[in-house]
Amino acid sequence: MTTPARSRQRGPYARSAERREAIAAAVLEIVVEKGHRGVTTAEVAERAGAREPTVLYHFPSKDHLLVAALRRSDEEQAEADDGGDSDAGLPERLRAFADSVTRRAGVLRLYAALAGEATTPGHPAQEYFAQRYAATVARHARMIERRQEAGLAPPGLDPVQVARQFLATWDGLQLQWLADPSFDLGEVLVAAFRRLTGEDRREARASLTETES
Amino acid sequence: MTTPARSRQRGPYARSAERREAIAAAVLEIVVEKGHRGVTTAEVAERAGAREPTVLYHFPSKDHLLVAALRRSDEEQAEADDGGDSDAGLPERLRAFADSVTRRAGVLRLYAALAGEATTPGHPAQEYFAQRYAATVARHARMIERRQEAGLAPPGLDPVQVARQFLATWDGLQLQWLADPSFDLGEVLVAAFRRLTGEDRREARASLTETES
Repeated sequence: MTTPARSRQRGPYARSAERREAIAAAVLEIVVEKGHRGVTTAEVAERAGAREPTVLYHFPSKDHLLVAALRRSDEEQAEADDGGDSDAGLPERLRAFADSVTRRAGVLRLYAALAGEATTPGHPAQEYFAQRYAATVARHARMIERRQEAGLAPPGLDPVQVARQFLATWDGLQLQWLADPSFDLGEVLVAAFRRLTGEDRREARASLTETES
Repeated sequence: MTTPARSRQRGPYARSAERREAIAAAVLEIVVEKGHRGVTTAEVAERAGAREPTVLYHFPSKDHLLVAALRRSDEEQAEADDGGDSDAGLPERLRAFADSVTRRAGVLRLYAALAGEATTPGHPAQEYFAQRYAATVARHARMIERRQEAGLAPPGLDPVQVARQFLATWDGLQLQWLADPSFDLGEVLVAAFRRLTGEDRREARASLTETES
């Protein structure tokens, strides 16, 4: 199977996908500007250049609209963090990432609110979060494996367990930061990453060796 | 000032406090049985032996009722974990605690849902979570300091930073576990605690010393 050329995709399916994209972008825009409690179908329709029934046809409830905004935000972040599988300067990249998300507190609040609600079986965001956790844990585990192979992380670590712990720290620190932004989210996050992956030891050993030599 | 004898407290204030306690206990009971989405003022009133207007007088909204259930659950856990400031067998106690909370998934879901919603300014649970995070970080920081004094944790750690990281791991792992309970929450939590506090190194060094001697 070959990927069809872009011009051949513009049938009804492509138009529908474009409309969904425009709606998701409109929701995300409102979340960033006003927070997720300010999202109304009427304003989404207006910003996306669609009619309200069209919005409701694609996304039957406000929760479905909000999940679409989160997916859109994930895609934007993945694009911004392109080359994110290269491991050079990882702590610096983590730090820059933390700094960038704290400038979008509306998206963090939406993520936190839906992550909590989605733990109730049957919630429209349940599948999104189950998939997101699984994909994020798998991605982090591969990253830790590569760092083990490169001698940057200790060989004895369980990559999946550490990946879970790191994702958890990230989600939990966001909650604390939103409740009280008096601490440096990026700094605490990077320090947790170093400790959980054992990389702070390697640095301690390296600086010890330097001192000794 | 002396603490008044219990019999002297039974004025209108004490009766009001008792009524609030009975209502909070009824809400928690429903959360454990049916989940927080199943909480109705009518059933709370019936279980607490009160009239609905009385319930609404003490707790003006469903969110206020749910916060009362979380506070009640915190108190029960604090009582069950009495002697929690002693540090003997801490990993085992953590593990037992994780096992006990996973038997009350309804309470975990309520905690996760309100923690997320409470990040939106003005939410009735905002103050509860801000206080809870601050108190938990302070308590964990003191525990880490004591472990440093006892030579169980490395002296170079920043107790407040590690306390934040540990609380975050705990909150985040609950979210992952509720989305997919296929991993052992207690095991991953205890391993994170050991890594974040550097206690796994101490054990590694100790076993190295044993091997060498």
